[in-house]
Amino acid sequence: MKTYGFAATSCDAPLAPFSFERRELRDNDIAMDILYCGVCHSDLHQARNDWGCSQYPMVPGHEIVGRVTATGKAVTRYKVGDAVAVGCMVDSCQTCDQCRKGEEQLCREGNTPTYNDKDRITGERTYGGYSKHLVVREEFALKVPETLDLSRAAPLLCAGITTYSPLRTWNIGPGSRVGVIGLGGLGHMAVKLASGMGAEVTVLSRSNAKAKDALALGADRLLVSTDDTAMAKAASSFDLIIDTVPVKHDLNSYMPLLDVDGTLVLVGQIGPLNEPSTVPLIIGRRRIAGSPIGGIAQTQEMLDFCGRKNILPDCEMIRMDQINAAFDRLERSDVHYRFVIDMATLTPDTAAA
Amino acid sequence: MKTYGFAATSCDAPLAPFSFERRELRDNDIAMDILYCGVCHSDLHQARNDWGCSQYPMVPGHEIVGRVTATGKAVTRYKVGDAVAVGCMVDSCQTCDQCRKGEEQLCREGNTPTYNDKDRITGERTYGGYSKHLVVREEFALKVPETLDLSRAAPLLCAGITTYSPLRTWNIGPGSRVGVIGLGGLGHMAVKLASGMGAEVTVLSRSNAKAKDALALGADRLLVSTDDTAMAKAASSFDLIIDTVPVKHDLNSYMPLLDVDGTLVLVGQIGPLNEPSTVPLIIGRRRIAGSPIGGIAQTQEMLDFCGRKNILPDCEMIRMDQINAAFDRLERSDVHYRFVIDMATLTPDTAAA
Repeated sequence: MKTYGFAATSCDAPLAPFSFERRELRDNDIAMDILYCGVCHSDLHQARNDWGCSQYPMVPGHEIVGRVTATGKAVTRYKVGDAVAVGCMVDSCQTCDQCRKGEEQLCREGNTPTYNDKDRITGERTYGGYSKHLVVREEFALKVPETLDLSRAAPLLCAGITTYSPLRTWNIGPGSRVGVIGLGGLGHMAVKLASGMGAEVTVLSRSNAKAKDALALGADRLLVSTDDTAMAKAASSFDLIIDTVPVKHDLNSYMPLLDVDGTLVLVGQIGPLNEPSTVPLIIGRRRIAGSPIGGIAQTQEMLDFCGRKNILPDCEMIRMDQINAAFDRLERSDVHYRFVIDMATLTPDTAAA
Repeated sequence: MKTYGFAATSCDAPLAPFSFERRELRDNDIAMDILYCGVCHSDLHQARNDWGCSQYPMVPGHEIVGRVTATGKAVTRYKVGDAVAVGCMVDSCQTCDQCRKGEEQLCREGNTPTYNDKDRITGERTYGGYSKHLVVREEFALKVPETLDLSRAAPLLCAGITTYSPLRTWNIGPGSRVGVIGLGGLGHMAVKLASGMGAEVTVLSRSNAKAKDALALGADRLLVSTDDTAMAKAASSFDLIIDTVPVKHDLNSYMPLLDVDGTLVLVGQIGPLNEPSTVPLIIGRRRIAGSPIGGIAQTQEMLDFCGRKNILPDCEMIRMDQINAAFDRLERSDVHYRFVIDMATLTPDTAAA
């Protein structure tokens, strides 16, 4: 199938129109029109080869929402017209212990990312959601509850599941005391989801400037992390802290906030941390963990949960041809809280412009 | 009660004979003759004020085994002649949530260390086990199973419980895959205890030199951590790694060894770690934790477990007046695997020598 989108052609080129082929439907594939695609900070990292593994041309985008346009003959879960979503992965081995447990994101062979990888069968490049159409095996598509506003649902597929998954791993629910560091795309979802689960939610921020926003998102309070007195008073008062900070940083002021057996879970930064002291870890039996996205079953659970609770990210809709300006603003953290591309603005004309 | 022992009088003075008073028995106190006291690396740190909180004169020692010589009138658990032990703490608030859970080591007010602190009632200095007699409230004494060789039991009170506690926190048992980094006082106990719980135990060492020792202690194998091929092959194959290394070090080569949701637990080093990469944490949902000693109930459980399994540390017995030479050797890691002071060698003559 011929389609078109926006691609990076090198680490320093702006994204530009790009025409390419999607594979013909295999028996277990669905085809979809992409209606919306979220803009994740990792799209920017990948387009610029910040992680050293980028291949070009690259069509970024792994927060994808649309509608089914065709189904392979063995497809059983979807029919034409269904609202569907695709997240960060489009395949996995399906046979290892992790895949069998529904933890495809932890596939022993490595899952197949939605873009910047290759198809497990043909070896063709995978291209992401900054495009008009997608073909994906049905096992890696998700049902989007029709009660959700599709124009805001896309960021759930990465920002949503990346914060939902640790909340579930660490059994957050009513009575849990959750802290959130960083109030960006991931952080604002962490606040909404933890709050939706009934937890007591505190946003940790370097100043009080975001207090109103934090409360509006559902947080119970904002704790100013540069206020030594307030921080000392909050010692040992969190069960889980979700750290969404995307750059190298220091955990030492946060660790004493955790109660015994409490965990600070890193979901944002890829790379080295500043030297952490073992003292709060050992003395208070505290923990540092990392967490990636969730598996397909958990991603569906998250979408269903958001459907029931009407939890949606705060989005700023952009046109496809605004993507480079959006990347620039993303780099300055100038977004509340997630850009979403309205794919209706991507036409053959836009693509050829 | 007048007694005597060896004390540090400043951070750079060798330990020397020291006469002092133990308190008269309160109603819930027992008095004991100290028969054996283990020499913990932290005794050396404290004597030399490495942690900046030392007060002098200081009588170190928190791996203490002896026999009851007198009991306060309200004492119900012990009688004269019982084999008893005292570990790293001699009191706590007994009323906070942690104390009520039997986690006195995590007392909200801070527990009272066996030495280098002050009595919660009178404010008198606490003095440790490098001495002839001890008075302690019965709630902080432990029963030593009579089946255990008392001359080797003392190190269980710190090295033993410090490694037993994380094995229990992380539910180690038959089928668990446990790694141990560092084969010193703590590490060799981790091997014996994990093996005694039925786990598959691997010692991680920079060379193969300790392979025979590791197997003799009960390990199933030694993995050479400088062998990149062997390390790559062992990726994702551990549920728990107990890291007993006492100096600043790097975790990055060890983290990929953990399976999904696996934990590296720090029990040795107090201070900053080298910068850990978040990549193996996030990609593999791995964890770094710390763990202190256990509570009194768990310490008793550990002693009873060691009694049933006849698990004892490998000790080198020293005379009280050899303590300074032992400290020097400890600093060079020249001990297999724990020094124990035979307190029969501490007489009024030794003390006055």
